[in-house]
Amino acid sequence: MAELTDLTVGVLGGTGPQGRGLALRWAVAGIGVVIGSRRAERAESTAAELRERAGVSSVSGRDNAGCAAEADVVLVAVPWEGHRELLESLREPLAGKIVIDCVNPLGFDKQGPFALDVPEGSAAEQAAALLPDSRVTAAFHHVSAVHLADLSVSEVDTDVLVLGDDREATDLVRALAGAIPGVRGIYGGRLRNAHQVEALTANLIAINRRYKVNAGLRVTDI
Amino acid sequence: MAELTDLTVGVLGGTGPQGRGLALRWAVAGIGVVIGSRRAERAESTAAELRERAGVSSVSGRDNAGCAAEADVVLVAVPWEGHRELLESLREPLAGKIVIDCVNPLGFDKQGPFALDVPEGSAAEQAAALLPDSRVTAAFHHVSAVHLADLSVSEVDTDVLVLGDDREATDLVRALAGAIPGVRGIYGGRLRNAHQVEALTANLIAINRRYKVNAGLRVTDI
Repeated sequence: MAELTDLTVGVLGGTGPQGRGLALRWAVAGIGVVIGSRRAERAESTAAELRERAGVSSVSGRDNAGCAAEADVVLVAVPWEGHRELLESLREPLAGKIVIDCVNPLGFDKQGPFALDVPEGSAAEQAAALLPDSRVTAAFHHVSAVHLADLSVSEVDTDVLVLGDDREATDLVRALAGAIPGVRGIYGGRLRNAHQVEALTANLIAINRRYKVNAGLRVTDI
Repeated sequence: MAELTDLTVGVLGGTGPQGRGLALRWAVAGIGVVIGSRRAERAESTAAELRERAGVSSVSGRDNAGCAAEADVVLVAVPWEGHRELLESLREPLAGKIVIDCVNPLGFDKQGPFALDVPEGSAAEQAAALLPDSRVTAAFHHVSAVHLADLSVSEVDTDVLVLGDDREATDLVRALAGAIPGVRGIYGGRLRNAHQVEALTANLIAINRRYKVNAGLRVTDI
């Protein structure tokens, strides 16, 4: 496996809280990051903020297509509503690359969050269907954006379940999880079992509301 | 809330590993238990074994209908294949009672475990549809039967997510979880979010196979 610090990780939707938080932690770990956004100037603005916060120079900003083309590994962190359209447009620049989908297809009503039906089964399986030439994994669904953004949280108290059918790809994504202090990347099954991992975010939101916390999950006995 | 030791908990499917393990831990905690099975003599045989292992007299065995009638709170721990038929037959004896569904609708093929489609959304929602006069909750999906059965495991290292729409019912089930040493019962959302908690058992099985463990889950930041 390549050294993580030789990699450039692209973050599609890197101006949102989840993408921005992960990008910050990877930048701090010495990993090159390209923030992607619909508008290049918004991406560059987030990149500038992250360079300053992480104290590094290795964060840049591009439009999403430029981010996909430039990165070695690409995290998809866009809102569910834009997921299909964005990935349809990036099939070529993402060909041959490891793609990490962290999108949670959720709806909200008066009773709180709930899982949406996805024709392909899950966001990750939709990504795999739209990107047949990429190596699609699913991970980083449950990491608190609040804890990621707060560098005074020196150990982020959660494990990251990494799903996928390609062992080399899931191993690399597990290593990217492990680059965040306190986090372990744990293999969590095949991509066909991604739906429930995505949907479980609704339960974590319910927990956060009931207990006034930013809950994460640890796997025990490992 | 009533004292737990004043309760009688029924365990439908109490001769299987999950029901038997929970029954053992509740018996050790001083809670009355009625084991239910299709055949009363099998239930009584398991009850006798649990009485001896727990060193208590308060475990009995009945057929499933007798178990449902006698218990104050009833755990449904039958195989998914028999879930619908059993609950259809127990609507009357379960009326007015708190029902805890821990059933995981899973299939297995050459690639391992996967979540089955359930017309009602989840086993727990199927139970709620079949038992309109009961107070249906979902819990105990992820507790390792191996660890429950082994009384040398003095602290079972997992949390139990308890789902339901009735606060008094979920609070009582959380207390039943907390009666197992090491375990916390944590509110995990409304019943409509039960599917992903049930289905996540497929991921835990994948983890168990990869890492050769009996994995559980802890919720962090609580």
